[in-house]
Order: sequence, then C-alpha cells, then structure tokens
Amino acid sequence: MLMFDCIIIGGGCTGLATAMYAGRLGLKTLLLAGNIGGTITTTDNVENYPGFIRLTGQELADKLREHAEDYKEFVTIVKDFATDVKKVDNLFSVCTKNNCYMGKTVIFATGTKSRELDVPGSNQYKNKGVHYCALCDGYFYKGKITAVVGGSDSAAKEALVLAQLSKKVYIIYRREKIRAEPVNAKRVEEMVKKGKIEIITNTNVVEIKGDGSKVTSVVLDNPYKESKALPLDGLFISIGLIPLSDLAKKVGVAINEKDEIIIDKESKTNVAGVYAAGDVADTKFKQAITGVAEGVAAAYEVYEYVNKQSVSQQSRETGKGKKKSKKK
Amino acid sequence: MLMFDCIIIGGGCTGLATAMYAGRLGLKTLLLAGNIGGTITTTDNVENYPGFIRLTGQELADKLREHAEDYKEFVTIVKDFATDVKKVDNLFSVCTKNNCYMGKTVIFATGTKSRELDVPGSNQYKNKGVHYCALCDGYFYKGKITAVVGGSDSAAKEALVLAQLSKKVYIIYRREKIRAEPVNAKRVEEMVKKGKIEIITNTNVVEIKGDGSKVTSVVLDNPYKESKALPLDGLFISIGLIPLSDLAKKVGVAINEKDEIIIDKESKTNVAGVYAAGDVADTKFKQAITGVAEGVAAAYEVYEYVNKQSVSQQSRETGKGKKKSKKK
Repeated sequence: MLMFDCIIIGGGCTGLATAMYAGRLGLKTLLLAGNIGGTITTTDNVENYPGFIRLTGQELADKLREHAEDYKEFVTIVKDFATDVKKVDNLFSVCTKNNCYMGKTVIFATGTKSRELDVPGSNQYKNKGVHYCALCDGYFYKGKITAVVGGSDSAAKEALVLAQLSKKVYIIYRREKIRAEPVNAKRVEEMVKKGKIEIITNTNVVEIKGDGSKVTSVVLDNPYKESKALPLDGLFISIGLIPLSDLAKKVGVAINEKDEIIIDKESKTNVAGVYAAGDVADTKFKQAITGVAEGVAAAYEVYEYVNKQSVSQQSRETGKGKKKSKKK
Repeated sequence: MLMFDCIIIGGGCTGLATAMYAGRLGLKTLLLAGNIGGTITTTDNVENYPGFIRLTGQELADKLREHAEDYKEFVTIVKDFATDVKKVDNLFSVCTKNNCYMGKTVIFATGTKSRELDVPGSNQYKNKGVHYCALCDGYFYKGKITAVVGGSDSAAKEALVLAQLSKKVYIIYRREKIRAEPVNAKRVEEMVKKGKIEIITNTNVVEIKGDGSKVTSVVLDNPYKESKALPLDGLFISIGLIPLSDLAKKVGVAINEKDEIIIDKESKTNVAGVYAAGDVADTKFKQAITGVAEGVAAAYEVYEYVNKQSVSQQSRETGKGKKKSKKK
C-alpha cells in the first residue's frame, strides 16, 4: 500500500490549493477526488477571488490545479472517489472502489452539495438564470428581477444580497412564514417596506421557463397577483446545503448540528492528524478564498505534525535521538 | 466629516482584498494607507498565492489593487497614513495628518514592520550598508560581498535574492540550523554547493563597522575561519517582524504577548465594530493568502454588523417600528 504524508480528500478549490501548499512544503501528498475542480466549476463567473477581477469557475479551478501540478515531485492527483477512511494506529487508510492508500494525515476538503430544486427547467437553465449563490452570481442581476426559492435564514440572506443589486427580489417559500433569524427578518421587512423585496408564501416553483438560453419566468403552484406565471431574470435556489462529512465521521471527527466538521483557527479537527477546510468545515463565511486559506493553513499544520512525528519516531528508535544527533 | 460604512487601515494584500470584498458587498468603504501595496512589494518571487504559479510581489499587489478599484463605486483609496483612531459613541474617527474620516467600523490591516538590529553601527550605517529588503536594495551590491542576518524562511529568501547579484552571501544565524521552507532550503543548499552562499550558525553580529560613509565589516561573537571580523559591503537584516498594532490599542483592542491583535475565526476583535486581518493579527501562519481570506471574512462581518446597526437604529427612531410596518 502506498504511504503518504498527507491525503487530501476533495479536489475543489480548497483541495487543489491545499495540495499545492503541501507539495511546496515537501510533503508526499495524495489528492483524491471524484470531481477535480469541484463546485466552483458550476459557476460561470467568479469575481470574488482576490487577484482575479473576473474569470470562470472552471478557469479558477484550472489555475489552482496547474499550481498544484507545479509541485508534481510531491503531489499525486488521482481522480477517484474516496469511499472509506479508517484509523490504523496513528495512520489513516483511505480507500476508493479501486485502491487503498495509507496516510500519516488526512485533510477533508469534501465540500457540500446544494440541495437542488427538482422541477422542469432547473437543469436546463442552471447558470443561465438558475443559481445557488447570490454572493457569487448576484452581481450579474444588477437592475434586474430575481427570486429566491427558500425561507430559511440563508434564503433571507440571499435575498438581502440580491436586494442591494436587483431592481426587485421575490422570496418564494412553500410555508406560511419565512423563518430567518430576527435580525435578518427585520432587514427583510425593511426591504419589503422599500418595495425591494416581495414575499410570496405558501407557494412552490413548479417549473422554470426560458427562451432556450436564459430564464424568463417561473411557474408557481398558487396564483400570485392572479397569475401563476412570474416573469424574472434570475432564480436563486436556497433550500439547503448538505456538508459532505460522512467519511470524516467514520474516524471520529466531531461535527456540529449542521453536519459540518468542527475546526479551529488552524484547521485542526478533534482527531490528531485530521484536518478540514472549505465548505465542509464549520466556518461562518464560505467562499473559495476562505476555503483555500483554510486549506493552506491545514497543509502547514500537517507539515508541523509530520515533522514532529518523525522526530519522536527517531527518538523512539534511537532511544536518545536528540543527543545522538548533536554528537554528529 | 465623511462617513463610511467601513474604514480599512493598511493597503497591503490584506487591505486591498478586503476593500474589494467590502465594495462587492455594497459597503461605502475607505482604504487608508501610506504605502499602497505593502510589504509584498518588497518580495521578488511569490509562488504560494494559490492561482498564480509565479509572479512578483509588486504584480500581486497590482492585481489586488485593480480588483479593489473595480468596485470604485463603493471603494475610495486614499494614500495617507492613519495617525489616530478614536471611538465616538458607536462610531470611529480615523485621522491622518491631513484629514479625519468617520466610520461605522474599522478593519486593521496594518501589517508589520521589520525588527531592527540593535548593535553599534546599525543606525549610523542604515541605508549605507545596513538594509532590510534585498529586493529593494540588493542591486547596489552587484558583484560585492553581502550577508543576511537571520535564519527564517524570509531570511533564506533574502539570501537567495542576493545570491543572484552578490559575489558571495553569508547567512549569519544565532541558532544551530536555519529553518527555511523545504523548497527554499533546497535552493539555499544548491547555492551553498556553488559556493555562492555560506552559512555561519551559532553566531551573532555584535557590531557593524565602516569607514564613516559605508559598511566595511561586521564583528561576530564567534570566530569564523579564525576571525571575529567578517569583511563585507552590505548587511541585510531579517530577524523578525513587529506587528503594527499601536493604533488598535487606542480603541481598546486586545493584543497578545507578541503585540498581535487577537481575532476570532470571523476576524472580529474584542471591540464591537473593530476587525483585524493579515500579518497584524494573532494567526499562527501568516501568508498573503491567509491574510486576504481573513480580510474577506472581516468584510462580510462588517456587512452583517452595519446592517444590524441600521436596523436597530431605525427601530429606535420609530419606537415601534415593527407594528407600524405591519399596518402598512
């Protein structure tokens, strides 16, 4: 079985940047990912990764991948889904369907998946009017009409981001009343007063319609202002994110009530040798840039951990390692 | 006096990225900095900002600045040193020699300055053979003999810059072994093999001597090749950084024993409305990318804070805002 200093699970922005940094630190690194590039590649336009005024998600992922590959002496990228992780003494075995690998450390950069809206048109118009992140993509709807599907605090926050940019924002929610945190509920109310936000409750979007290249309207299951058709330019789905933390749970990593991996400022989890970074972690503000920085910090922690381990290993082997080395 | 949602103090990578993000969030933002671009501009070779395989520090700073300027509708950049910060009720007044500005929030991205070598001759020969930036001043020592004082990764990088210009570069370090990142340690090793770099460990510079107008030698506390006098032309000091946290202290911000501003995972300090990011903060691992991400998180916290404030402000003004709005 191949032995690595560091196994990174996940090949999104976070995983790729982490691999680059680990390689730079001379760590023998394996990046395992079913999807190299990750979620960002589903985003048309990235304008909020500092240093790049504007590029596509795919372009950013490619740049991060090339950067990691620049350290190929140390970094191996394998396109394969990790399906199992086990702790073996103070090492970790990570398996895919095809192979198993041993690592001194594991970094979970597994991300999340958006709960998708499953209605006709939602796939056809994904990134052509159907989006999952107002902060990422809201700017393209400056002066236009948008809607948020969902009624959680996150949905309210999406609507608030959009309200600063769009001409008008609808919140379309299946229940009686949106359930944002008080402060965000208040903010939404203010925007409703200003006519910026309009809330449509007890209503579902049942179809997304467009002209073939972009969204033009949605179909509601309840008439709103006497019509089931609601014309709009952008539809932002916010019906939940699912952190991909199942593998981490298998090695005893602590997660919070949202299923996110709990990390400290250095990206450490509660399990020695296990780190997490990016959207799967319990950070409040999840962006490509913050995930990347968490990954970089994790790589540095791995570097310290592996060196410390190898020193104590030597001490055990020599009995009095430090003294011996001084004599040399 | 001009009122801003957010005043960022410091114009390095962190400050510039923070300004971009604040602008993106529609916050009226002022960036105040004596030195736009900051410390990174003194670095020759940046290879560890994920997304850019290799660029100069100046190039990275320029990219971050251009990105911030892309949001000029919201972001004002003023090249001026902040000299005073005061809390006025729940607002902040930030003054330079020339002007005062009011902000609802302040983000300290003030960075660090180089620790000076305090030995006889270090002041007399400052900029006359004693320097703190190889990239800035190394060129004057083309074909000459130079030395770097220090053993960190930064010191190694300074020596590598000098090795491209000088006839010979000494690294003078007080401890047993220099502690550069693996990739830079290797490069130094290669230069040692080529006879370009020579490492003197367990040794301090105790005096800098010259002919009155320029440095001619240094005095070591341990003889090297049987002499305590080491003739050289240029001495580059790289013995650590001092966090620029004095202004933050003025508004009651808590600092640690290293004079770094204590922040949480969201870049908040102990003072409501005050944030910090980058090298001035108490993060373990200080890199351009981590500072940038901290700044981005701070911008998002400011966005939440300013909105919360404006909501409670309105509630106070209307007395019974909520009921009133329901009647409408």
